[in-house]
Amino acid sequence: MNLPRLYERLRADGLDAIIATAPENVTYSSGYWAMSQWIRRGPQAYVLIPAERHGEPCIVADTSAVDLIADQKVWVQDVRPYGPFVIDRSSGVELDQRSAMFARLLDRQDRVDAVAVLVRAIRERGLEGARIGVDELGTTPQHWDRLLDLLPTTTFVRAAAAFRYVRAVKTPEEVARLRTSARIAEKSILAALAIAREGVTECDLGRVFHKTTIEEGGMPVLGCIGFGPRSAMPNVQPSETKLKRGDIIRFDVGGRYQHYRADIARIGVFGEPSPKIARYHRAICAGLGRAYEMIRPGVRVADVFEAVVETVRREGLPHYRRSHIGHGIGLDGYDAPSIAPNSAEVFEESMVVCVETPYYEIGFGGLQVEDTLVVTKDGIESFMTTSTDLMVV
Amino acid sequence: MNLPRLYERLRADGLDAIIATAPENVTYSSGYWAMSQWIRRGPQAYVLIPAERHGEPCIVADTSAVDLIADQKVWVQDVRPYGPFVIDRSSGVELDQRSAMFARLLDRQDRVDAVAVLVRAIRERGLEGARIGVDELGTTPQHWDRLLDLLPTTTFVRAAAAFRYVRAVKTPEEVARLRTSARIAEKSILAALAIAREGVTECDLGRVFHKTTIEEGGMPVLGCIGFGPRSAMPNVQPSETKLKRGDIIRFDVGGRYQHYRADIARIGVFGEPSPKIARYHRAICAGLGRAYEMIRPGVRVADVFEAVVETVRREGLPHYRRSHIGHGIGLDGYDAPSIAPNSAEVFEESMVVCVETPYYEIGFGGLQVEDTLVVTKDGIESFMTTSTDLMVV
Repeated sequence: MNLPRLYERLRADGLDAIIATAPENVTYSSGYWAMSQWIRRGPQAYVLIPAERHGEPCIVADTSAVDLIADQKVWVQDVRPYGPFVIDRSSGVELDQRSAMFARLLDRQDRVDAVAVLVRAIRERGLEGARIGVDELGTTPQHWDRLLDLLPTTTFVRAAAAFRYVRAVKTPEEVARLRTSARIAEKSILAALAIAREGVTECDLGRVFHKTTIEEGGMPVLGCIGFGPRSAMPNVQPSETKLKRGDIIRFDVGGRYQHYRADIARIGVFGEPSPKIARYHRAICAGLGRAYEMIRPGVRVADVFEAVVETVRREGLPHYRRSHIGHGIGLDGYDAPSIAPNSAEVFEESMVVCVETPYYEIGFGGLQVEDTLVVTKDGIESFMTTSTDLMVV
Repeated sequence: MNLPRLYERLRADGLDAIIATAPENVTYSSGYWAMSQWIRRGPQAYVLIPAERHGEPCIVADTSAVDLIADQKVWVQDVRPYGPFVIDRSSGVELDQRSAMFARLLDRQDRVDAVAVLVRAIRERGLEGARIGVDELGTTPQHWDRLLDLLPTTTFVRAAAAFRYVRAVKTPEEVARLRTSARIAEKSILAALAIAREGVTECDLGRVFHKTTIEEGGMPVLGCIGFGPRSAMPNVQPSETKLKRGDIIRFDVGGRYQHYRADIARIGVFGEPSPKIARYHRAICAGLGRAYEMIRPGVRVADVFEAVVETVRREGLPHYRRSHIGHGIGLDGYDAPSIAPNSAEVFEESMVVCVETPYYEIGFGGLQVEDTLVVTKDGIESFMTTSTDLMVV
C-alpha cells in the first residue's frame, strides 16, 4: 500500500479515517484477499485506516474467512473476526506457526455482526464523532444505514474515489506483479496463436489461452478473442466460429497474477493481411508509439489522448475517434488515470497504465494494440516483450 | 427465468416493477451477461421488469457492451444503450444477422447516463409514482440517489431478497447447466488426484484442476485444495506445500459453466487413511446420506439441518457442530435456501442445493463431502457420478 499517498489524501479531504469495503480496496489496504467478497456480492470485509498518528489500522473479517489472514502476507495486526464459526482443535498436538495464528484469530471471534465490530474498533480509536470516509463500492445500503444508526454523531462520507486516487501510483511490489501479469498474458497469446490453423475455433484458442495463464501461475479473467468480422465486437466472447484464411484474430485479454490484473491486446492474421488491415494496423501502432514518446511524469493525460488520436488519423485512419486511449491497471482492471479527453490528471512516476488504440468497424473487424507500461522518473518502461506488429500465422 | 415465481413475489410484495442491478440478477432476468459488471465493481447494467400486464421488460446497458446482447441468447427485446461509444461501419458490406443487430443497437444509443435512460423506460411504462423494487446489490449510493432525485414521487424499496427468492427454484435449462457444472468439477477433481504422488504441491493439483475445468468448457472460480493439517483451513488456497504419506487432500471446488456455479467437495488420502480419518469421514458421509433420505418438496430445511448434524454425531463425530449444512446454487455460489437451523424455508421442487458436512480440526485437518442435487417431485436427483468415499491414492 502507498501509505504516504493515502495519508496525503486523507489530509486533503479532511478525513480522520477511511474504511475499505470493496475487495480491491480491502486487499490493497491490508494484504487480505477475502475470497468470498471477491467471488460474490454481499459478503462484508472492512479495513479501517485512521489518518496519520490517529491509531493502528484494523481488519474486520468474517470468522469463517480468517484462515486466509493466517495464511497470507497480511500486514495489519489488529484483526477482528465477526460472527460465529465452528472449528475444532486437536488436543495435545503442537501447532505450526500458521495453525497457531489461525487458532488465535478464532479465539478473538465476536458473535455480533460486521458493522457492530467495526463500530467498536472506531470507538476504541477515539474516532466516534469524527469525519470518516467509507468506500461505498463494497458495502450495501443495509450495512451503511446500520453504521449511521450506531454512530449518529460521526460524519460518514463516500470515499471510493480516494482509494482510486491512492491506488493509481504503484509500489515496487505492485509494479513487479503487474509486470509478471502482463507477461503471462503475452505468453498466453503466443500459445493460443500457435494452434491457429484453418478450422480451429475461437473457443479452441480461448482454452489454450486460459490454460497457459494457469500454467504460468495466473488465473483467467478477460478472454475476448474474435475472428474476422466478429473481431469488431469489443467484448467478443469465444464462440464455435471457425478460423478462415484472411481473418483478423483479435485478442483483448488478461488474467490475474497474485491478484493483479493484465489487459493487453494483439492482432493476429491468418494468412496474408489485406492492404486495409495492414494500413489501419500501422496507423493504430503509430498512435501507440506517440504515447510511448510522450508519457512521463508531469505530462497531462488529456494531452496524450489528443496527440495519440491525431497521430492515428494522420497515419492512415483519418476517421479515427475514441472515448479513451487507455487506463491505469492494478487490482482493478480500470484503475486511474483514464486517458481521456476530459481528464484533469497528469502522469506520475510509478503509475502503471494500459495504452490502447482500438478500432472497431462492423462488417470489417476490429484492430487493437494494447501495451502495459510503468511511468518512470523520466519516461516509461514497457512490460511487453513482443512487438505490436501484426502476428501473421 | 422463473417468471411466474417473479410475478407471484411482486404481487406478494406489492411491487409494480422490479429492477435488477447485480450481475447475477441482470443475467437471470434477461440472459444478458454484462461482462464489465461481472469482472469489476461499479459498472451499471439494469433490467426493468414490470409486474404482470404492466408492460414489457427493458435492458439498460452501457453502449460499449451491447455487442454481447447481439451475440447472446437475450430474451428481452427492448434494449436501451446509455453513453456514447464509437464503432465504425463498413459501407457497402452486407451484414450478417448478428452484426446487423449490433449496428441497430448502436443506433439506439442515448448519450445520457444509465439512470436517466432507466428513468425514461420507467416513465414510458406509466410507472412514475408507482412502487418499484430495486436490487440494491449491484448499484451504488450515487446511482440510487440519482434515481430518487429524478423520480421523487416514485417509491423505491430494496429488493435483492425478492430476486434471491425467485432464483431459488430453477428452470429446466438452469438445472441442466448446474448438472454440467457439477460434473465438470467432479472430473477436475479426478484429474487433479491422478497426479497425486509424494512431493507434488497443492499448486500442482490446483493447476490441473483449473485446466481440466477449462478443457471441459468451464471457467475457474473456487479452488480450495489443502494437504494434511492445511486442509483444516476452510478457504485453503493452494500453496507450495508438498504432499506427504498419510495426508488428507481436501477439495472444496467448482467453476462456472455457462455462468452457473459448481461447489462440491471430496476427500483424497495419500496412502492408508488413519483410523481417525476413516471414522470421521464415515460419520460425515452418514450425515450426507441422511440429507439424501429426507430432502423432498415440503420438508422443512431446518429439520434436515437438525437430522444431519444429529446423524454425524451418532455415527462417529459426537462433538460435531455446524452453522449450516448446505445452500442453494445457481448464478451465485450461495443461492437460497441456506440449510441452517434458523431457516423458515421448505424444500421445493426444482431447487438445486449443495449439501455438505464439513469438519475442520486445527492440528489434524479438514474432512468434507459436498454433493449437488436437484429436488424432484418426490425426492431428489443427485448430479454426482462419484461416491463420497475416501479417494485413496
